[in-house]
Amino acid sequence: MPENAAFAPADADFERRVRESFARQGLMATLGAELSAVAPGFCEIGLPFSDAVSQQHGFFHAGATGAIADSAGGYAAFTLMGPGDTVLSVDYKLNLLAPARGERLVARGRVLRPGRTLTVCRVDVFAVRDGTETFCATMQQTLIRTPASGARPAG
Amino acid sequence: MPENAAFAPADADFERRVRESFARQGLMATLGAELSAVAPGFCEIGLPFSDAVSQQHGFFHAGATGAIADSAGGYAAFTLMGPGDTVLSVDYKLNLLAPARGERLVARGRVLRPGRTLTVCRVDVFAVRDGTETFCATMQQTLIRTPASGARPAG
Amino acid sequence: MPENAAFAPADADFERRVRESFARQGLMATLGAELSAVAPGFCEIGLPFSDAVSQQHGFFHAGATGAIADSAGGYAAFTLMGPGDTVLSVDYKLNLLAPARGERLVARGRVLRPGRTLTVCRVDVFAVRDGTETFCATMQQTLIRTPASGARPAG
Amino acid sequence: MPENAAFAPADADFERRVRESFARQGLMATLGAELSAVAPGFCEIGLPFSDAVSQQHGFFHAGATGAIADSAGGYAAFTLMGPGDTVLSVDYKLNLLAPARGERLVARGRVLRPGRTLTVCRVDVFAVRDGTETFCATMQQTLIRTPASGARPAG
Repeated sequence: MPENAAFAPADADFERRVRESFARQGLMATLGAELSAVAPGFCEIGLPFSDAVSQQHGFFHAGATGAIADSAGGYAAFTLMGPGDTVLSVDYKLNLLAPARGERLVARGRVLRPGRTLTVCRVDVFAVRDGTETFCATMQQTLIRTPASGARPAG
Repeated sequence: MPENAAFAPADADFERRVRESFARQGLMATLGAELSAVAPGFCEIGLPFSDAVSQQHGFFHAGATGAIADSAGGYAAFTLMGPGDTVLSVDYKLNLLAPARGERLVARGRVLRPGRTLTVCRVDVFAVRDGTETFCATMQQTLIRTPASGARPAG
Repeated sequence: MPENAAFAPADADFERRVRESFARQGLMATLGAELSAVAPGFCEIGLPFSDAVSQQHGFFHAGATGAIADSAGGYAAFTLMGPGDTVLSVDYKLNLLAPARGERLVARGRVLRPGRTLTVCRVDVFAVRDGTETFCATMQQTLIRTPASGARPAG
Repeated sequence: MPENAAFAPADADFERRVRESFARQGLMATLGAELSAVAPGFCEIGLPFSDAVSQQHGFFHAGATGAIADSAGGYAAFTLMGPGDTVLSVDYKLNLLAPARGERLVARGRVLRPGRTLTVCRVDVFAVRDGTETFCATMQQTLIRTPASGARPAG
């Protein structure tokens, strides 16, 4: 599914690691987000609409869009890491392209450029309304790999 | 409080409008975010730590950081709008500077450049741990003013 | 060539307008940049390597990469504008993915989301070395359409 | 001059290293840019207006603005590095706030968050017209430190 390359995972057990990590992200459970697909260099997260993730006009809040996009990109990067690695977001830019209106948001994260230290991902987000997808946001994201014991996003 | 300028609100009733709009953002209630200060060109939002906003290492999720920062910048811009205006995020870039670890996050949004159509804000986010603030994230954000009836973030 | 859509130009004479505008950009001539392809929603700009566009390690300077990428995205957007319109960059994020090393840089700008006011583009930049392209940078860019008489990038 | 902190340089000879590196950036000479101030965690670069750095309306091209801003941030970071270190841009976001019109541009780069691996800078750019400064652009930039022999911007 990644558009640029066929990525080889460093660890055949990548999907289990992604699913376990996702299950520990309290925010994803709070929002009601679901991990819908995982492949090497790719991750898809879905988010059903509810008042819990809305903004003042009744659409998805850009913060909810950003949150699932950040996780989708992070887990796309994580699929290519080794068993002892962790990955943290360094920065992301989110462009909001159209109102995030519909019954569901879907964020598809892809690794653009994997690296020893830094990985760059792109995440496209679609609003699903009556079954039709509208391209509503896109994210360009930088991530850093750190040893499992560390947790320093910038340094 | 804005660092660059003394801004004059277009509508003296700006604080009431900000508080009413904030109260309609379901996501802010879901996260437990609080609107702690509003001034012309400025808005501060706090977020107490809980598992509901965590990532897999037990810190604040970058998506929660981004969500309150996006709202803080958006409401900073909104303080300078007229009664019939609405404001939508066009894009934001969030840099994560240090682990968002502590009992509370505080996002302080300031208008850098107000405009007829576009407004640019900066939002600095601090993690409060044992009462001490650590600068943990910074956002550069573009917003668009639209008539109250519209809701088109990019166009 | 655009990846997402077949765009219809508002003005059949779009290529002439793009080429005339490009010819008036002093910076492009200074750098030695060449407008190599124009299509609806698409623009490609090439830049031969020279010391004039280098950084301290003898590669292309990130500022040169950013400059041709900004123009490639801007002209991709401009292909869809009417005869009386102008377009200005609101913001861009450039991620540098690999050293920009080689005999030539090629920036390919595509419209992701055209809009009445705002247009969002993506620009991918490749370094050509011994005839082989390496994906070395990617840009996410927001642009605003203004009447020909105006020149206000943010407001 | 840095707004957030008093930074201690790792190498007392930082200014000489910055000036030597700047002198090797062919692009800065091509544009006519001048290194006007260096301090720990800070760098200022000026750019006189000329047709060589213009866009189609006769203002400074956003690519020229981005280029000096990228260098100002990069050298601000470089002031805090050791003698054997080099620094490369990972990404930057530039927001264009007002037309870059005047006799001179001044880019002031400041380290927001220095780090062992990654450093985050902010760069504010002002257009000087008849001696008055207008805040015309702001950049949020991520940089990576690498050993002098390496040159990998993302990985």
